[in-house]
Amino acid sequence: MSRVASVEHDLRAAVTAEIVPPRAEYLTDQTEARGLTGRADAVALPRSAEEVAEVVAWCYERGVAVVPRGGGTGYAAGAVPLNGGVVLSLERLARVRSFDPLLWRMEVEAGVTTANVRRVAREGGLLFAPDPGAAEQSQIGGNIATNAGGPHAYKYGVTGAWVLGLEAVVAPGEVVRFGGPVRKDVAGYDLKHLLVGSEGTLGVITSSWLRLTPAPEAAWPVIGFFDGVRAGAAAIERVVGSGLPAAALEYVDSETMRYARATFPGEVPVGAFGVLAEADGSHDEAGRIRTDLLEVLGEDALALYAPETPQEIAALWRWRDGLALVIDAQRGGKASEDIAVPLDKVGEAIEASLEAGKRFGIPAASWGHAGDGNLHTTFLLAGDDERELALAPQLSEALFDIALRLGGTISGEHGVGFVKRNWLERQLGPRAFELHTAIKRAFDPQNLLNPGKKA
Amino acid sequence: MSRVASVEHDLRAAVTAEIVPPRAEYLTDQTEARGLTGRADAVALPRSAEEVAEVVAWCYERGVAVVPRGGGTGYAAGAVPLNGGVVLSLERLARVRSFDPLLWRMEVEAGVTTANVRRVAREGGLLFAPDPGAAEQSQIGGNIATNAGGPHAYKYGVTGAWVLGLEAVVAPGEVVRFGGPVRKDVAGYDLKHLLVGSEGTLGVITSSWLRLTPAPEAAWPVIGFFDGVRAGAAAIERVVGSGLPAAALEYVDSETMRYARATFPGEVPVGAFGVLAEADGSHDEAGRIRTDLLEVLGEDALALYAPETPQEIAALWRWRDGLALVIDAQRGGKASEDIAVPLDKVGEAIEASLEAGKRFGIPAASWGHAGDGNLHTTFLLAGDDERELALAPQLSEALFDIALRLGGTISGEHGVGFVKRNWLERQLGPRAFELHTAIKRAFDPQNLLNPGKKA
Repeated sequence: MSRVASVEHDLRAAVTAEIVPPRAEYLTDQTEARGLTGRADAVALPRSAEEVAEVVAWCYERGVAVVPRGGGTGYAAGAVPLNGGVVLSLERLARVRSFDPLLWRMEVEAGVTTANVRRVAREGGLLFAPDPGAAEQSQIGGNIATNAGGPHAYKYGVTGAWVLGLEAVVAPGEVVRFGGPVRKDVAGYDLKHLLVGSEGTLGVITSSWLRLTPAPEAAWPVIGFFDGVRAGAAAIERVVGSGLPAAALEYVDSETMRYARATFPGEVPVGAFGVLAEADGSHDEAGRIRTDLLEVLGEDALALYAPETPQEIAALWRWRDGLALVIDAQRGGKASEDIAVPLDKVGEAIEASLEAGKRFGIPAASWGHAGDGNLHTTFLLAGDDERELALAPQLSEALFDIALRLGGTISGEHGVGFVKRNWLERQLGPRAFELHTAIKRAFDPQNLLNPGKKA
Repeated sequence: MSRVASVEHDLRAAVTAEIVPPRAEYLTDQTEARGLTGRADAVALPRSAEEVAEVVAWCYERGVAVVPRGGGTGYAAGAVPLNGGVVLSLERLARVRSFDPLLWRMEVEAGVTTANVRRVAREGGLLFAPDPGAAEQSQIGGNIATNAGGPHAYKYGVTGAWVLGLEAVVAPGEVVRFGGPVRKDVAGYDLKHLLVGSEGTLGVITSSWLRLTPAPEAAWPVIGFFDGVRAGAAAIERVVGSGLPAAALEYVDSETMRYARATFPGEVPVGAFGVLAEADGSHDEAGRIRTDLLEVLGEDALALYAPETPQEIAALWRWRDGLALVIDAQRGGKASEDIAVPLDKVGEAIEASLEAGKRFGIPAASWGHAGDGNLHTTFLLAGDDERELALAPQLSEALFDIALRLGGTISGEHGVGFVKRNWLERQLGPRAFELHTAIKRAFDPQNLLNPGKKA
């Protein structure tokens, strides 16, 4: 390992990629609100996998950390450089390398935004199903690196389920391919799924082959309002138990509804807990499922809302997608985690997480992907109250405790990043954690790929 | 590492599991027809994960190989003990630990047969979608360890797509859990998917949490007959390009049809290439898709066959599932591989694999999972002709060559086992192969878990 006089200067002289100073927008993500900002020596803006490999090779030879960066929309500080090194932004790897609509297949570079992937697919009559939030800003490489979810993961699965193959740069600076444009492959260990969700700690994803599926002709959400958590959880289980193939199954608890009631595009009974389910498929099929969903939800609902026009439907999803912003705006600060639990524990997990808020004297609200048992519980902290803000770690830990006690996970879709890493060993147990660490070591013996995250 | 006087004797004295002599039925799998039989020192028949751990710990301490065994229906010699050691048969871990039909979830031990998993699910109104051949004999643990496929993987995905979590015994003899009854989990690296398809070389799968889905009300296969490979391949692409969500999309080439024509439950034009597609879903939906499939296939089909009664439908699938046996019976010997290629290369791959047979003067037949680009090309060898039988390795290599040349994989669903391992590095490339090897070393530093397979 040779010494480096100035990373920015030396790197610029050595590689093809453009190197820029570590501007503020490259040093944080959604955790900025929690006060998390990083520090880097330089930002690399490569335009190809080969240019990425060049940067990684230079860094690896000199013991300089590499922090890969997508759209910066993460909630776990996965893209925040903790202690210097090079931020490797994939934004300029933004080509759709190929799109074969008749073969349900697309090859896209890491920096293509999620919204663009979905747009290109849709123009070919196809659906790229994963729909994490912030699609206009987030990048497919980041979605894959975090195995991002979203409301429609309930029917369609998370991002990784749609990845056929990956091109990535691994240490000490080489382009490799795991899988390819093939729908089935059991030749080697599943290195592709190992990279998926690895949060840049095993390699830098530069491109991916994605599987697509025919776009449903229709998608009709309906929402039922129930008297509290228990009745809401019962409705959720009723929808699942009915065997109806809902495309999404979401919940919005009474506390969240209280803040978001004013912007809801319809009537909401006071104090109600919302359960949103979507029917999709051919027009006939979606219509039939919608009717059945309304019947199942209607059994003990206080009210139902079933938008019909495209405008009304879009408005309902816009409202749903905007919940986080509405809640965030209430008191200026927050602690929020994305634990997931077995489906039959959703009600208990929501109640326990609201209870945790009460214990600390902090208002809490909970919503999320009910069908996947994935809670987004948020504690609303006064942004100008140091004492409240200081409670954030304990509040998050209360949620992790609930997840593990109920047989769940500390992260359903946001990832571990920096903020949850001390909890990973507790979830995995000592031997599985050792294996986890051994994999990191095998891929990154010098611990230079996004150090301090995940592993 | 201590010396062992007699593995069978010493192991019996040391562990709870029943230990039996290495009887012939534990020493081979479907590769027996190719003359592959193994050699073991003892067979362990544990009844629980703890008993598995005891056996693995005893072996690991003494440097004795452990060869996990499911139903023994593999085609890659993955369960064949190559050079002594202990065959660890999972057959007595045969409990359904839990079944929650209203939550679409099941926890089953490794030794439950695939057919039983499907039966239990069906009795609860649900579908366990993966349907590899030999379901009555194969075990779910083996299906997971090989990431088995089957015709319906086209719509529903391979076995791994339905595994929520795994319980496994890893070296040096410890029970671990990767995932659980949770539908989303991005906490750690995807150790679950790493075990899936690892063919017993990273750990011994003892139990699994499976995701289920509501059973379709109806499933209607139709088959079109076409004039040769080109027309057949065009029909396959037409079905995919139509955007119809077929549940299965299979092909049976003209050579295979020639041998299997007599047993086909309907009329078959002479020399025809068959394309089978299945419509499933609600009655209405399946009916609509079936009509559309018939229209798409009918465009230039020589004939169509569209069974209507449950008996006719069952007969068609029985015929399809029996193809391998019919072909195997023709000349007494065979060489057969399960390469997969990109969908647009299916026709080319079929033609090239038949061409390879001609080059060697050996009759060839090809059928498989067209929609997944997964060929089962078989070379029919005279079982009593040593010269022909000796060609098997070269014929298999000709298929691997085709797969890699067309951007595919040496194995779509059967796995690498012993028979394909020399080809793995060529597919992965040197750096990915190094990482592959490093993972094996991390999980199994003494190379005692199914040595000589996969890695």
